[in-house]
Amino acid sequence: MFRRELTVRTTGRGFFELTNEVAAVVLSSAVADGLCNLFVPHTSASLLAGENWDASVRRDLEAFMGRLAPDGDPRYEHDAEGPDDMPAHIRSMLTQSSIVIPFAGGKLQLGTWQGIFLWEHRTTPHERRIIVTVW
Amino acid sequence: MFRRELTVRTTGRGFFELTNEVAAVVLSSAVADGLCNLFVPHTSASLLAGENWDASVRRDLEAFMGRLAPDGDPRYEHDAEGPDDMPAHIRSMLTQSSIVIPFAGGKLQLGTWQGIFLWEHRTTPHERRIIVTVW
Amino acid sequence: MFRRELTVRTTGRGFFELTNEVAAVVLSSAVADGLCNLFVPHTSASLLAGENWDASVRRDLEAFMGRLAPDGDPRYEHDAEGPDDMPAHIRSMLTQSSIVIPFAGGKLQLGTWQGIFLWEHRTTPHERRIIVTVW
Repeated sequence: MFRRELTVRTTGRGFFELTNEVAAVVLSSAVADGLCNLFVPHTSASLLAGENWDASVRRDLEAFMGRLAPDGDPRYEHDAEGPDDMPAHIRSMLTQSSIVIPFAGGKLQLGTWQGIFLWEHRTTPHERRIIVTVW
Repeated sequence: MFRRELTVRTTGRGFFELTNEVAAVVLSSAVADGLCNLFVPHTSASLLAGENWDASVRRDLEAFMGRLAPDGDPRYEHDAEGPDDMPAHIRSMLTQSSIVIPFAGGKLQLGTWQGIFLWEHRTTPHERRIIVTVW
Repeated sequence: MFRRELTVRTTGRGFFELTNEVAAVVLSSAVADGLCNLFVPHTSASLLAGENWDASVRRDLEAFMGRLAPDGDPRYEHDAEGPDDMPAHIRSMLTQSSIVIPFAGGKLQLGTWQGIFLWEHRTTPHERRIIVTVW
């Protein structure tokens, strides 16, 4: 079992692609065939194994979430850290904080148009950790 | 570690049960007790470990998603592959592309009413892959 | 590989924290560094690795789900077990039935404000199982 921690300094809400960084961890593990777990120890950022070719898909995912869980909705009780606080928790709850991806021959078995993204749900920059475990 | 790839030819949007196929992979691995990872290398199809007894549940899940992310919503920027293109990405984002299920004595530890489904989110037929890894 | 089953007697809809119970399973496994899979063999309860400090976050998550998938919505076809039956399946579908969490030095690598919860989606009490596997 091989573990590395990735760090992403986000610039606010949006997607930060990690595909190359995760692929590099898998390669450096020297395991040929196995599985790779990603875990995000945060409750206002999450993971997406999603479309990585057309950025308009990610803009639409972002806009969809904005309509589903609007910032500053007066129905939220919790707003300790601002109008994007509770929406960030809702977005995290609706997406993934852990993913397990197979690899073979040292290569992640992602689809042709599939990339790995950290999804920052807060509007302000944050330092986010992604714990990568290969076995 | 034991790996097999399943293929499903979907007939359009809907659920395609994989419980027996996954159980057969676990059996053929000759591992008695362990874990089974399913991964879908697609961004417009996903996995559900859900109710497998009453088909009305799945019809309601489908209808719910249809209301939540309507086909052809003019607010989508991305519609390169048609009115169901962006809804398929949204449905994938809201559900699972990877699941890890325990098994014991060669038998998946699913609940009594729980089955494994590939969920096709596009309205047209597609060939979908599911990478199954047992350890 | 080490496996234990946890049981939670829920008192109806809501969050039941499992962080200490899962940490105890990891400790008793005597594995120092590894991964821990949680799996819920139910289709109307799920898992959340979410905010554990401020209970108002969980009240807002509950209220959000109540607006998204209202109890007794006449558009549901399936209501065999009552007005909360189909909402429970929808909530399960939108959240996680399996999570994989890394640990190091016998300690779960959760975030500072992150806890593990069973989320009961039915309004009546249920006995829920969580299968914990450590490797």
